[in-house]
Parts: sequence; C-alpha cells; structure tokens
Amino acid sequence: MFSVTVRDHMMIAHSLRGETFGPARRLHGATYVVDATFRRTELDADGIVVDIERATATLRDVLADLHLRNLDDVPELRGVNTTTEALCRVVADRIAERAEAGGLGAGAGGLTGLTVTLHESHVAWASYERAL
Amino acid sequence: MFSVTVRDHMMIAHSLRGETFGPARRLHGATYVVDATFRRTELDADGIVVDIERATATLRDVLADLHLRNLDDVPELRGVNTTTEALCRVVADRIAERAEAGGLGAGAGGLTGLTVTLHESHVAWASYERAL
Amino acid sequence: MFSVTVRDHMMIAHSLRGETFGPARRLHGATYVVDATFRRTELDADGIVVDIERATATLRDVLADLHLRNLDDVPELRGVNTTTEALCRVVADRIAERAEAGGLGAGAGGLTGLTVTLHESHVAWASYERAL
Amino acid sequence: MFSVTVRDHMMIAHSLRGETFGPARRLHGATYVVDATFRRTELDADGIVVDIERATATLRDVLADLHLRNLDDVPELRGVNTTTEALCRVVADRIAERAEAGGLGAGAGGLTGLTVTLHESHVAWASYERAL
Amino acid sequence: MFSVTVRDHMMIAHSLRGETFGPARRLHGATYVVDATFRRTELDADGIVVDIERATATLRDVLADLHLRNLDDVPELRGVNTTTEALCRVVADRIAERAEAGGLGAGAGGLTGLTVTLHESHVAWASYERAL
Amino acid sequence: MFSVTVRDHMMIAHSLRGETFGPARRLHGATYVVDATFRRTELDADGIVVDIERATATLRDVLADLHLRNLDDVPELRGVNTTTEALCRVVADRIAERAEAGGLGAGAGGLTGLTVTLHESHVAWASYERAL
Repeated sequence: MFSVTVRDHMMIAHSLRGETFGPARRLHGATYVVDATFRRTELDADGIVVDIERATATLRDVLADLHLRNLDDVPELRGVNTTTEALCRVVADRIAERAEAGGLGAGAGGLTGLTVTLHESHVAWASYERAL
Repeated sequence: MFSVTVRDHMMIAHSLRGETFGPARRLHGATYVVDATFRRTELDADGIVVDIERATATLRDVLADLHLRNLDDVPELRGVNTTTEALCRVVADRIAERAEAGGLGAGAGGLTGLTVTLHESHVAWASYERAL
Repeated sequence: MFSVTVRDHMMIAHSLRGETFGPARRLHGATYVVDATFRRTELDADGIVVDIERATATLRDVLADLHLRNLDDVPELRGVNTTTEALCRVVADRIAERAEAGGLGAGAGGLTGLTVTLHESHVAWASYERAL
Repeated sequence: MFSVTVRDHMMIAHSLRGETFGPARRLHGATYVVDATFRRTELDADGIVVDIERATATLRDVLADLHLRNLDDVPELRGVNTTTEALCRVVADRIAERAEAGGLGAGAGGLTGLTVTLHESHVAWASYERAL
Repeated sequence: MFSVTVRDHMMIAHSLRGETFGPARRLHGATYVVDATFRRTELDADGIVVDIERATATLRDVLADLHLRNLDDVPELRGVNTTTEALCRVVADRIAERAEAGGLGAGAGGLTGLTVTLHESHVAWASYERAL
Repeated sequence: MFSVTVRDHMMIAHSLRGETFGPARRLHGATYVVDATFRRTELDADGIVVDIERATATLRDVLADLHLRNLDDVPELRGVNTTTEALCRVVADRIAERAEAGGLGAGAGGLTGLTVTLHESHVAWASYERAL
C-alpha cells in the first residue's frame, strides 16, 4: 500500500452548537493545518500515487471555498455542526468529488482511499478516512 | 472512520532490564510526548468522536500518575519492563478503563478503538493500538 | 544570557481593517500557538530564569481572556487592528503587567526581557520583543 | 498491535522521467527525512517491538547507500523512476532484506509489517507499507 | 522590536568544493525549508511589519529561480560554494533587492532587518541576518 | 551575521533542589532535544560557519557524557541544580572547551558565539548564549 500526503491550511471563524461545547459555543475561530493523504495499492505507470501538483491544487481549491470565512454564514454548511471532525469529512468529500470529476487526472482512477486530517492546534487534531 | 487525537506529556526516570538494552539498563529518564487517538465509525449527535475536553482531562489524569516519578519505584509497574512500547499499553489500558467507567461521557460508548503514541525523542516513537 | 520559553494556544475570531488585508477583512479566525520567552542575564539562586509553573500559568491566564472569543467584540481591543503582530504586543504587555504585579514570583525581578511569538499557521508567525 | 518508529535522513540528487513531472524532469534534489515503522502483534520477551539500536543502525546503513548520491547514476536504481513513493519501496525492501538476513536480531522474527515514510518537504510526504 | 516570518521551500541539486566537504563533494541535493523573517521597530499604520501576502510572494519568487535546479549550472552562482550558509545570503540579498525595488510595498520602507534560515534536514539548519 | 545549528538529544534522570520545584524534587527524568547554534560574522574560505560534521560530532560527544545517566550521580555536576537552564550552560561550556582545544578544526577560530537550546517537551525549552 502506497500513500502521498500534501499539506495546506485555512483560517475560519465559527461557533459550535450543543451543551457539550461550553465556551466554544461562542463565536471564535481556528487555523486548520490540513493534510490530505491519497492511497493506492500499486503505483501507476509514472511511479506515483497521484500527480502531486494536481493533489496540491485540488486541496488548495477546496480550502479556498472556506478560507477566511465565517462558517456560520456559509450556505452549504447550514445544518452542519462544524466540529473539526465534521470539517474533515466536508474537505474529504469535496476532494473526492473533484477526483471523480477528473480533477486529479486520468491516472487517479487507481486511487483507493483518502484521509483528511485537520490540526486545530499543536495539541489536538482529527481525521476522516474514506474510500475513493 | 473518524478519529480525534489529543497530546500531553510526562517526564519520568526508569531503567530497563535485559542485555538488549546496554547502557539503558542504567537509571536514566525520558520526556514522553503522548498522543491519544480515539476512533469511531460515525460521529455522535453532537458531530464529534469524543468530547475533547474530557479526552484531554482523561489523558492528563492518566499521565499525572506517572509524571515526575521514577517508574522503577511505582508499585503498579512492578514486573513491567517499562520500554516505550510497554508504556504505550499501560497508558492506553488506563484510558480504556476510564472510558469504560464513564470518564469520557455517555456518548463515548460509540468509540471503537484507541491508539497511544509515545514520542521519546525527535527521532524515535512507539505506538499501541487496541479496541475500545 | 539565558532564556526559558513556554507554549500554549488560543482560538479566536476577528476581522482586519484596511485595504491591505483584502479577503482577511471578512470575519474569519485563527489558532495562535503562542510562545512566551523570558530572558535574564544570570540564573537566580534556584538556578532558573523563571518559575516555569508560574510562567505557564501566567501565559494561560493571559490567553484565557482572549481564547474562544471574537476579538472584534472585546472592549479592551477596541481601536486595535488585531493583526498577528499587534496581538503579540497585547499578549506580551499583559504578561509584563502580571510580572510587575508579582505574578511570576519575587525572583522574577531579575528578568530583563520578554519575547512573544504567535504562530498563525505552519507557514507564518510573528514576534514582539520588549524589556521587562 | 504495537509499532516502533525511528527517523533519519538522506540528501540526494535525481531527475524524474515523464510528462507528468514538468520542471521536476530537470536534475534537482531533495532531503528526505525518513521514518521506518516496525510492527508486531505482541511484544517480545524484552518488552519491545524491535531492538531500537539495531533498527536505527539498519535504517542508517540502508540510507548510507543513497545519501549524498545522484540517484540517476546509481546502477541498482536503473529503470526506477525515483519518485518519493518509489523510493519508499526501495528503502522498505532493503530494510526487509536485512531483517530477513538477521540484521535486526533473532527477536525480529516476530515482526509483521513495516512502513517507510519519506518527507520531501514540510508540505509533502509519501509512505509505503508492506508485510515482513 | 517586531518581526514576521513566512516559510516556503526549494529542492535543488549541487556539489560542494573543498576537502572539508568529504562525500558532499559528489553531486547530491537538498530540500531547503526556507524561513524569511522581516523586522521593524514599530508597526506601520495598518498594524503590520510587512504585507504578509507580498512577503510570501517575494519569497516564492526568489526561490522559484533556484527551485528544481542543479545549482552547479546556475550562471549567477558561478564562483559561489553553495553551502547552506552561503545560500542563506543569496536568498536574503535577493529578497532585499526586491524590497528596495518596492516589491514589498511602500510601507516596507520601515523595515530594519531580515533573517533567512534554510533548514536542510530535521537536524541541521543555517541562518544569515542582515540590515534592510 | 551567520549561524549554523545542529540537533541531537540526551535522556537523563535527575531531581531538583529547592521549594520552587514542588514535585520535580522527586527523582524523575527528561529527554532533552539539544540544538547547538554556532555564529560568526563572515564565512570562512570554504563558505561555512563551522564544519558541520565536526560540529555534529562535538555535540554528540558532549551529550554522550550525560546521556543515559542519573545526573544526581555525576561527579562533575555535584553542586549544580540541574535545571534545563543550567544544563544549557553545562553543554555550551563543554562545547566551547572543545572548540578552544581545536575540536571544531582550525577554521573555528573565527566563531564569535554559541547558543545551546534544550527542549524538555513540546511546550517548554531553555537557552543559554555565550561568546566564543
């Protein structure tokens, strides 16, 4: 099993809903350092898991839709409690959509899985892993 | 599959038993930077893997029993060769006991697994993974 | 010259004022990983720069006033463009006030300087250095 | 499941073959910070996954054959497009050969798997995972 | 004193000249993770040290001239022994030239100094500090 | 001004003396990740601050005298309260002695200063800076 990971980040405001979150129910924010890990069983004819330039561009594009925003005001996230865990899935699913639409190139058909990790600080992070 | 990780540390003295360990059989010490990763298949009703405040507090409490101690003198570790690997299991099992006793909250029943990683330096670390 | 540094973090929302900031004029947020570095020429009688427990507690207390807040709504910051650089000074000045009020202990009289660094991502950080 | 990881690095020149690589087809280079992770189900009689001194020495020896070289001129790599992913496999397979030849000690027979990760920068890395 | 730092990287091949360098006289390569730190005594009217977007773009542009190259073949570096230390000065001087030519914006006139750090691995780095 | 830094580590046991240290008066331990930074005004004829192989070897040798030891039993440290700060000076002074004895090579005569940083965890570190 092979994997390739690329890293980028986004800086957002949001508030969380539910008793569990205590003071994090207030409007606050986070820098998420985001790692996207692409997996495949065997390398393609070029000897790669994925074209790293395309993977980097895809991650950047997905994050650009959320970067420097207040997530409480983003229509597509209405109804989502934007926890770090939930945002991992949002980012992963958006990358997967782009992969399926050809955004990672033709060779990306051999990808088998994707993990997205959001680091919210030096002492806490979350991940979501899915098939591709 | 989702996961959440929290990080803390402990600073201990110990000595290792067995020819394999060479000079590490002498009394020496380590800072262990400790990561505890909690896993579950789906998020709970709040959109989380685990209440991060409780996860952080549980890890801190487990480490507090070992922090600033000479592990050679800790009665509960008698008979344990306190390698980094073995300490990963000690920390993981103690977190699991607290999780089962409700220390992570009612929602923690949905947790499926736990990994504990101890970083002993910038060039070496160990992990232990178990079910919950 | 000796120094001791302690690290903590805060997660805030804010918006920036001025053409220069482009999309960062929108409400967004950041995790700031914060390092406070204390300096002195010679060590005190205990062989330390500062009591690390007190330094850690002082940093945590200063950050607690800003953590999980929208800085645009914090009365004491009215009139401050809360750039990373400006927040370095806010944090440093508040630590200095507490040091002068005895919050770092009697031995802290020998401290000569303080630097506060705020890491806003894995690719950008700012610092402010002042005398004590 | 237990694991132990050791880290080292190598600094190499190379060029990549294929349209996909754009300007990386030119002769350039990389520092690879290399992590080798050894796995086993249960700890051995000493309470370890692998003798960390032998693991460290094995990784260093494998990297020494590539360190400070132009990989385009290394005979054993003729025909290999030396992408980060492909180099992960080269390093892992060479460690596996040494493990099978006894280089990790007799106790290493209980090892079940190996993952090699090459970090090519602060924003990109690749891994290869295999059985032992 | 305030500072702002931005990080990027470049991947180059080169060889070093002189007995001192032993096997590093062979053609090999490096990833340099590069930090550029800008200093000024007081913040400008926007509350910043430097426009971080311009600083990031300037660093990226300077590195783009060297990234994915064999430095032994770069005409402007003829006669330079491209040690990590020497490359720090090359990068810093090129950033300084662009700053003087207005590339960091009008407000950059207040900058007083610049430090460039090149990390060649997880265990070695070099810096060059100059006035602006 | 130029600098070069090399990193290594040591793992020690010790106890601290004085009311200030609370539970750290008990025998415990630490991994210190140690950075030694060498400074000089201009590069030497080879284009370097210091021969990095010799700097690395010197740091390793100095740490080898303390690594895997209980500092409470090290005769040369009798009377030293082995705080992180104090150990920075011990390491720096021993490196300086070796530099003066020629251990860094003839070219090291141009070195002007040395800083030693000991990281005791991911959230605390100390430094000592001296002339050479």
